[in-house]
Amino acid sequence: MKLSEFSISRLQQALQNGELSAREIANATLTAIEQQNPRINAWTTIVADRMRQQADRLDRLRREGQPLPPLAGVPYAVKNLFDVAGQRTLAGASLFSKRPLAVRDAWAVDKLSQAGALLSGMLNMDAYAYGFTTENSHYGATRNPHDLQRIAGGSSGGSAAAVATGLVHFSLGSDTNGSIRVPASLCGIFGLKPTFGRLSRHGTHPFVASLDHIGPFARSCEDLTRVYDALQGHDVEDAFQAKVAPQPALAQLNNGPEGLRCAVLGGYFQRFSDNDAQQAVATAARALEASELLELDELDIARSAAFIITAAEGGNRYLPALRSQPERFEPLSRERLLAGAILPSAWYVQAQRFRRYFQQKVLALFDHFDLLIAPATPCCATLIGQETMLVNGQTLPVRASMGMLTQPISFLGLPVTTVPLRTSGGLPIGLQLIAAPFQEAKCLRAARVLEKMGIATAPVAQLEIAGNPAASACSWSSTHDK
Amino acid sequence: MKLSEFSISRLQQALQNGELSAREIANATLTAIEQQNPRINAWTTIVADRMRQQADRLDRLRREGQPLPPLAGVPYAVKNLFDVAGQRTLAGASLFSKRPLAVRDAWAVDKLSQAGALLSGMLNMDAYAYGFTTENSHYGATRNPHDLQRIAGGSSGGSAAAVATGLVHFSLGSDTNGSIRVPASLCGIFGLKPTFGRLSRHGTHPFVASLDHIGPFARSCEDLTRVYDALQGHDVEDAFQAKVAPQPALAQLNNGPEGLRCAVLGGYFQRFSDNDAQQAVATAARALEASELLELDELDIARSAAFIITAAEGGNRYLPALRSQPERFEPLSRERLLAGAILPSAWYVQAQRFRRYFQQKVLALFDHFDLLIAPATPCCATLIGQETMLVNGQTLPVRASMGMLTQPISFLGLPVTTVPLRTSGGLPIGLQLIAAPFQEAKCLRAARVLEKMGIATAPVAQLEIAGNPAASACSWSSTHDK
Repeated sequence: MKLSEFSISRLQQALQNGELSAREIANATLTAIEQQNPRINAWTTIVADRMRQQADRLDRLRREGQPLPPLAGVPYAVKNLFDVAGQRTLAGASLFSKRPLAVRDAWAVDKLSQAGALLSGMLNMDAYAYGFTTENSHYGATRNPHDLQRIAGGSSGGSAAAVATGLVHFSLGSDTNGSIRVPASLCGIFGLKPTFGRLSRHGTHPFVASLDHIGPFARSCEDLTRVYDALQGHDVEDAFQAKVAPQPALAQLNNGPEGLRCAVLGGYFQRFSDNDAQQAVATAARALEASELLELDELDIARSAAFIITAAEGGNRYLPALRSQPERFEPLSRERLLAGAILPSAWYVQAQRFRRYFQQKVLALFDHFDLLIAPATPCCATLIGQETMLVNGQTLPVRASMGMLTQPISFLGLPVTTVPLRTSGGLPIGLQLIAAPFQEAKCLRAARVLEKMGIATAPVAQLEIAGNPAASACSWSSTHDK
Repeated sequence: MKLSEFSISRLQQALQNGELSAREIANATLTAIEQQNPRINAWTTIVADRMRQQADRLDRLRREGQPLPPLAGVPYAVKNLFDVAGQRTLAGASLFSKRPLAVRDAWAVDKLSQAGALLSGMLNMDAYAYGFTTENSHYGATRNPHDLQRIAGGSSGGSAAAVATGLVHFSLGSDTNGSIRVPASLCGIFGLKPTFGRLSRHGTHPFVASLDHIGPFARSCEDLTRVYDALQGHDVEDAFQAKVAPQPALAQLNNGPEGLRCAVLGGYFQRFSDNDAQQAVATAARALEASELLELDELDIARSAAFIITAAEGGNRYLPALRSQPERFEPLSRERLLAGAILPSAWYVQAQRFRRYFQQKVLALFDHFDLLIAPATPCCATLIGQETMLVNGQTLPVRASMGMLTQPISFLGLPVTTVPLRTSGGLPIGLQLIAAPFQEAKCLRAARVLEKMGIATAPVAQLEIAGNPAASACSWSSTHDK
């Protein structure tokens, strides 16, 4: 049995009763990363010494008969925009390749260390978190573990690929317009984008203060929920964190579907999703008894407004560097950032005004429904380097459009769980289960319903030989059936 | 004895024991407004019928032996950007001279009606609330009751002039960058700009969503506090209101100076204030035992950032009208609004980022001090039409610079009471007493200390004959001594 087949709670048990030591977990994880990472290009930094030291501390605790913390010995990794003491926070950008090493851990990393989780390293991403494909011109593209010729999605592509290959139990990513949900969808794992302001972002490299979220990826709802619960808590250093008490979600996870009023988001979400995505929605809708199809207006405006806020705040953040060293920028982002900085301020103000108006409008839906269902991406993973894709007869640019179904939802700040379904072609696709602000527990509970029914599944991806599309096409079903 | 010589509580007593009826108060107020308003040009709308009907309802209550509400029979007026049912909300702009009549009262007007106060009408202001002088090209300049050749300050100039002449006991204004504090200073009355988000703005014509506040003017601290207390409360319709419980300030008003640690803001505030203003600060500092002089850096940046946010949000709000009917705009604002709309978004974002940084920095001061003292205006009221003024040897443009001492403080969102002192020349000047967020009670208590000592006084201004500067120069002292 492989480590990846243990759930977090099973791993705890194994550690507690001495089947495994934390040091063994750390060593096995580091060896597997060393072997398999070159295939997927997920890790940009490996912190082997730190991982072994953390493991040894846990083993000492156990020998001394001390109680073990809730995530003791669980291997994980973080997107390379989380500060890790002594490491360089890259934010995917060669621009930062010489910045000083981080002095302390990000809030989230610190919480996870306290919870006993074992940090293995830092993961690849789109530069500045500005992208949906993790085709990083400097650090290389991260490859989709279900088909190494395909994108992992982005911007937290490394975070999703690392978990999908089973090398770590969970990972952390960030989501501004879809950067957790898109790679979770394309890599076939569970992801949680909590409510805007729910989790502290302190110690993460910022992109768009108005829209940035952090959140976890995992291969099961229970693991995802355990990590989310460990990340909750008030951080006095994060001015953007909402003043809302932690609400542990694990206790409610297995409460089943009773009382969850679900609806499907149609219109825009149908128009921009292909058959695979629509089939997945239909399957989940049947399972969750969501008979109503809601057509929300103005989603295209919401997406535009999110684009404007992203470009303007991103442009503002990078303006000094754009002026002084434009040659060091990611070519896929430089002109977008420059254009963002000079957008008229009236547009930015209008985008923020529309956001408040739209939030009020959409919040009213939650008087009637607990959960809204929508696809997470218009289609399954496209090929690395592919410029356009055909969705419902429309040719769309891949890099911008992979996030078009997630963008209006993060713009609203709503919590979303992404659940992985399988398509007839064999590649995974994700759905968004969307709840009212601070109702993460409902998203997770509904995800668990689909997982329990076998509809949402995240089996470990077997790395297929790159350059063999025929083999990769069936990687999903073959791993799932084993 | 005139009505204006009654405090609010004395007026209540007179009403309760039958010395006066509410109808008599309403009639006397309306007659006095009719006689004196042409001299000061404060009222743009008089609601005589509504006032008499409100009064009659109160008189009926009294005849029936019912308890009277806390502001029963107190005459007041509002800046013409507050909605009054059946009236046209002008926001000082001829652009709105044909807009539909308001259907319902603004939240604040509704609260005051419930409290029994008698609304007399609506008051002049700078167009769109964009100005510090109330030199309104369409509705005329409001004149300073202490010298009719001088400005009343703005943008709530009508609100300050109406109270300074004793025609009403209090008024409401709004403050984005100083629009309560500047006219309170120049007209020699008390004003309160509460914490950003403390009072609901619902039903007021907006200018800059990020900076707009509403607040009251009065001629005594007790009256000001009674009105402020009546205005508190949560309004579900105001998305910008802070979720902070009401904290009635009246009970603490007479607690005296004990325990109030006060400091004087020097540097920028000294550099941009003349002898009159500096003398006033020195007097208050002695009285409040404020020995420490604080020099805050970056106040010029704070002012610039407030200017950028104001221009960008104002520009955004008026952009459709600027495009379609530029000829209907206030000439003193049109180009500022146009320029604001096309400021680069990166500047606006930077201004908002600086705001968060600066708030954190300044908040730390309140670990050591309860109150900060600063002048409210660089000098006393200038002449209507005057373009520049000399302050400390620097020639400054009047219209922009009258708010340069208030602007960095509202940018921070801090609560401020303006207290009126007299200058050797006879004209009044105001000080800002600044507290930590939601500590309005401390501002009011400190103001009361100065009032009790006779340092801060707001005697009714006797309207001097326009065009007689010699007479107007001594209006302040003569009214004060009577």
